[in-house]
Amino acid sequence: MSAVPTLQSFIGGRWLGTQAGQSLASAIDGHAVAYAHADTIDFGEAVSYARRATKALVAMDFQERAARLKALANYLAERKEQLYAISHHTGATRADGWIDIEGGTGTLYAYASMGSNELPSGNVIHEGPPVQLGKQGKFFGSHILVPRGGIAVHINAFNFPIWGLLEKFAPTFLAGMPCIAKPATATSYLTEAMVRLVHESGILPEGALQLVIGGTGDLLDRLDGQDIVTFTGSADTAAKLRAHSNLLRQGIPFNAEADSLNCAILAPDVTPDDEEFDLFIKEVVREMTIKAGQKCTAIRRAIVPQQHLDTVAQRLRERLGKIVTGDPSREGVRMGALASHAQQADVAERVAMLAQGNEIVFGERDGFSPVGEGVERGAFFAPTLLLCRNGMRDERVHDIEAFGPVSTLMSYTDLDEALELAAKGKGSLVGTLVTRDPKIAAKAIPIAAMHHGRMLVLDREAAVESTGHGSPLPMLKHGGPGRAGGGEELGGIRAVKHYLQRAAVQGSPTMVAAVTGEYLRGAAVNESEVHPFRRYFEDLQIGDSLLTHRRTVTEADIVNFGGMSGDYFYMHFDEIAAKETQFGKRIAHGYFVLSAAAGLFVSPAPGPVLANYGLDTLRFVKPVGIGDTIQARLTAKRKIDRRKKDPKGVGQGVVAWDVAVTNQDGDLVASYDILTLVAKRS
Amino acid sequence: MSAVPTLQSFIGGRWLGTQAGQSLASAIDGHAVAYAHADTIDFGEAVSYARRATKALVAMDFQERAARLKALANYLAERKEQLYAISHHTGATRADGWIDIEGGTGTLYAYASMGSNELPSGNVIHEGPPVQLGKQGKFFGSHILVPRGGIAVHINAFNFPIWGLLEKFAPTFLAGMPCIAKPATATSYLTEAMVRLVHESGILPEGALQLVIGGTGDLLDRLDGQDIVTFTGSADTAAKLRAHSNLLRQGIPFNAEADSLNCAILAPDVTPDDEEFDLFIKEVVREMTIKAGQKCTAIRRAIVPQQHLDTVAQRLRERLGKIVTGDPSREGVRMGALASHAQQADVAERVAMLAQGNEIVFGERDGFSPVGEGVERGAFFAPTLLLCRNGMRDERVHDIEAFGPVSTLMSYTDLDEALELAAKGKGSLVGTLVTRDPKIAAKAIPIAAMHHGRMLVLDREAAVESTGHGSPLPMLKHGGPGRAGGGEELGGIRAVKHYLQRAAVQGSPTMVAAVTGEYLRGAAVNESEVHPFRRYFEDLQIGDSLLTHRRTVTEADIVNFGGMSGDYFYMHFDEIAAKETQFGKRIAHGYFVLSAAAGLFVSPAPGPVLANYGLDTLRFVKPVGIGDTIQARLTAKRKIDRRKKDPKGVGQGVVAWDVAVTNQDGDLVASYDILTLVAKRS
Repeated sequence: MSAVPTLQSFIGGRWLGTQAGQSLASAIDGHAVAYAHADTIDFGEAVSYARRATKALVAMDFQERAARLKALANYLAERKEQLYAISHHTGATRADGWIDIEGGTGTLYAYASMGSNELPSGNVIHEGPPVQLGKQGKFFGSHILVPRGGIAVHINAFNFPIWGLLEKFAPTFLAGMPCIAKPATATSYLTEAMVRLVHESGILPEGALQLVIGGTGDLLDRLDGQDIVTFTGSADTAAKLRAHSNLLRQGIPFNAEADSLNCAILAPDVTPDDEEFDLFIKEVVREMTIKAGQKCTAIRRAIVPQQHLDTVAQRLRERLGKIVTGDPSREGVRMGALASHAQQADVAERVAMLAQGNEIVFGERDGFSPVGEGVERGAFFAPTLLLCRNGMRDERVHDIEAFGPVSTLMSYTDLDEALELAAKGKGSLVGTLVTRDPKIAAKAIPIAAMHHGRMLVLDREAAVESTGHGSPLPMLKHGGPGRAGGGEELGGIRAVKHYLQRAAVQGSPTMVAAVTGEYLRGAAVNESEVHPFRRYFEDLQIGDSLLTHRRTVTEADIVNFGGMSGDYFYMHFDEIAAKETQFGKRIAHGYFVLSAAAGLFVSPAPGPVLANYGLDTLRFVKPVGIGDTIQARLTAKRKIDRRKKDPKGVGQGVVAWDVAVTNQDGDLVASYDILTLVAKRS
Repeated sequence: MSAVPTLQSFIGGRWLGTQAGQSLASAIDGHAVAYAHADTIDFGEAVSYARRATKALVAMDFQERAARLKALANYLAERKEQLYAISHHTGATRADGWIDIEGGTGTLYAYASMGSNELPSGNVIHEGPPVQLGKQGKFFGSHILVPRGGIAVHINAFNFPIWGLLEKFAPTFLAGMPCIAKPATATSYLTEAMVRLVHESGILPEGALQLVIGGTGDLLDRLDGQDIVTFTGSADTAAKLRAHSNLLRQGIPFNAEADSLNCAILAPDVTPDDEEFDLFIKEVVREMTIKAGQKCTAIRRAIVPQQHLDTVAQRLRERLGKIVTGDPSREGVRMGALASHAQQADVAERVAMLAQGNEIVFGERDGFSPVGEGVERGAFFAPTLLLCRNGMRDERVHDIEAFGPVSTLMSYTDLDEALELAAKGKGSLVGTLVTRDPKIAAKAIPIAAMHHGRMLVLDREAAVESTGHGSPLPMLKHGGPGRAGGGEELGGIRAVKHYLQRAAVQGSPTMVAAVTGEYLRGAAVNESEVHPFRRYFEDLQIGDSLLTHRRTVTEADIVNFGGMSGDYFYMHFDEIAAKETQFGKRIAHGYFVLSAAAGLFVSPAPGPVLANYGLDTLRFVKPVGIGDTIQARLTAKRKIDRRKKDPKGVGQGVVAWDVAVTNQDGDLVASYDILTLVAKRS
């Protein structure tokens, strides 16, 4: 065996820490995997280094940072086996490691992709639409989101040393915020290995990510109101951190994601013969045993109809009986160890508390002997299922969390009681409802949603592709109310917004357009002899505009349009019925107005505008009658440079155009945005 | 004079408090306006009464609650003179009272209107679009927002006794959350009068609004994780409340909006001859004197170019010299009193601190004698302008807030320095930039936005309709980072969402559709012999669907469509150029596909579908070539019942339809939503 390494923190651009401190033991056989360092970290240096890094991060834009995330995901994915090799010491099976390692890189990929597809180029997100604040259209308001200029401190849990860091880092980095990450010490050797890869890659700008091995010292005292602190771990520690005097004094945002007593409900419509019944059994066992139950999201409470209680208990026993626990490197092992002896002792203590007055349906007494060498020095714990005969009265089963392969079964008499039992967790990260009946889902989920950050509805159709009760996904909110910490993480671009500052902006249309980077009606436009569709992406400016020639709409147009489209709606073709409408006459088809407007502003010969691929927010504001004369104004509204090229290698960007179609009185008749791809000069 | 009344709290559905406590003095002449009650409030009763009220609130839906808000706004607006009469005692001029009283009812109207126009019927907001989570389309995720099931406690400031309550109550009530409001005691007689009107109106369901006169006792100890606490006031008190042990322990959301050292910047492009120069002077004086400067949003720091410092000081002096202070009932009085003697003493103390090392440019020494009877016993304070010669070094002017008609003038050498000075406030509610140059706005505002909740860009165009630096608006976010409390209020429907619980929902398309109330592709559809356009609003179900007949697109269609629309784009008409595109051939116009699809699904005779008034999220996914055969599926996606009627009294609702146009291979070629008005049977 090689010498036991001393882990290092990555602070101020260098690795520091040479004196061996706390020994970190393998969860499998207890041997020392690494030492935390005993050297003191200068958090003043860490913070000022991060503050300097803000400049480099904001010198890039959302699109460039998204591209870096993708490069980083690729770099780590190519080296994942190095991480799997270390992950083993944490007690993780390959499947557990997959969640952590590939779940981590997958989250980077997901944020890279969302960043590229959903965020603008530049560093200002316009959260519109602008609102007109005066009758004359001289004064508007809107909202922008900008990088906060501060730094993020992420304090993470021991169970997912890689995913835990990356799922917070990805949105933080996209938002242009440097990050100081502090993993839980027990499994920090795996985080350190990953951060070393990140550093070696050279993909991130200096200071974007620092790593703290060990305690956070006076770090939190050095933060201010532009910074953000997040925490993942126990509700107790969350409450302690939340009370930190500097966070309170300066109103520093603090986001917590805490363990919770998550539940799975077997709905009353499901019978033991249904496929859904087995799905419920499988989900509960899976959540009890993945990562040896050490997930904030694991199912701690299985809530089933009274009449099926015995059958559920029986089937859970059977399935749990097949779980082989031991050294995950052994063939056939399905469940590994808890992360440490401390965890093992803690889980044992809580199981003992839960067992008072409740029955152990499956557990130690069924004979438990993990397989593998030296496992007696490891931190194994037997899957344990308790049965609570009176869930409505026993508050402990809704409060005491054994953070291991432990769950409690309880029963209900009707759906309302099931939902009451679920709510007794006082706020959970996630719940599952297994049902075949959309009506039950439609009734139960909005009620359960009051207490849950996420709800999974499981049926045979969803099961084909379900990612499972316990898996937070980049696109969906992670974090629940109350006991679960009250925080929000992930959830798509929402997570990036958590690390940005939202500001309202007010002013004349021209000023609001200048600030948001988006034309709005009333703002100054640039008109010239050159048709805006004949400008390359680089040359096109927001506000470049064309006021078209006019066209008088005739009865023949309506007739022709009906013939061509097959749309003979009475409003256009039935003089008798049309007279009865609020318009009192036949009117032109809305889609005729749209098509005629395109005819007014299109520039027929090949040019930089490659395609009109879509249209948004079309409103037919006023009817167009026979004899009305329409005209369109087309104005470049928004440009997004995603650094993309077409199949022939021609660079292109997205341009959205505002289209306002008016009639002979200057009244707006139709309003919409069209979306185009525009070629670059180079 | 009539006997001095004892104010009452409105708790548990009755007015309580008979023993006179603290005397509340008129700000104008010091006479006792009212006594706070000395009776102890049973907050256990208040909380349990509010908890019971949740049911009644959620028995209504967003639309009904919006309608109640409108009715309440009308009721109060009709009785506004009763409130103006009392408002006078707080030291407010008619203009100050307008902000408080009509600003308050205006906020109710605004939320009534936003609720009616932007929120669904029912009590579930679907925050989509759903995200496909598996390759086969069997598993989706989305987000819903639901009433939290908890109660809101609002602790408000003394300066806007009416608006302060209503601006928080409006979104809280829309969200279906009962509210316990505690105004600052000093001016609580005005709040009490307003809540009496609210109660008399009978418009709100029981328990929707309770009022606490005096302290909050053990109220905060009785809350849990589904509840919410908000606070408006000083940064110190915000920090104290934020540290409340029960809020911390249970992770109860706490939203603070605190006073801040807001600034106005005169940009370097503006010369003393510009209209904008005067706008700056007027804005600073207005903000110093409205409400006698007792606004969280008032301009405390005026930041001007070095070369214009003297001119600005001169013009501010001139304008301030014209402000008549005194009893607002006197003709010509422009500025009233501070709210209390305590405020008067506090402001004097802080001005003294600010004056150390800084010059008083305008203030007491210029001669100050408020007009009116008994004003010597009132709480008047002279408008006071200080000049700080070194704003980059004197931290006190960025930190000490005199909450009265007090502002400090300071200068900068370039725009970067101006922004640095602004940032020294460490987080502000609002800032103003006065400039003529959109480029300066585009550069400065995103930087200033890091430290501000709202930024006003003022130029001669905006000035015509500007609502001013200091006015929070219902549609725009109110609240800033850091010292300003880090909270968010208002900002349109965002504010309602703050009082709702967001949950991610996962499942099969059918289940996600059932829960969100919105059809998504892949969910079960209902097909029948009846065309869905022939169903009345009440009969139409989400998922009602029509698969149309087919249509083969021919060269003649392209030719006819071009002739009809005038759109001769080369992709449709120039075989030579079209060959060079990625499609390698002429393709049909996108708008032809759209028009032909309408021809496929339209039901020509008069029926319940009254109008297609818009279209959203149209994407042309695949080109349609000559010889391709298209078909459309039309499915009822979303129903919103706004309880509206058409001009003839026919009830109608909004129905959005999902349209998927496919080709002969079943590939999607176009995808969009159409918006229709559908008549009700009754």
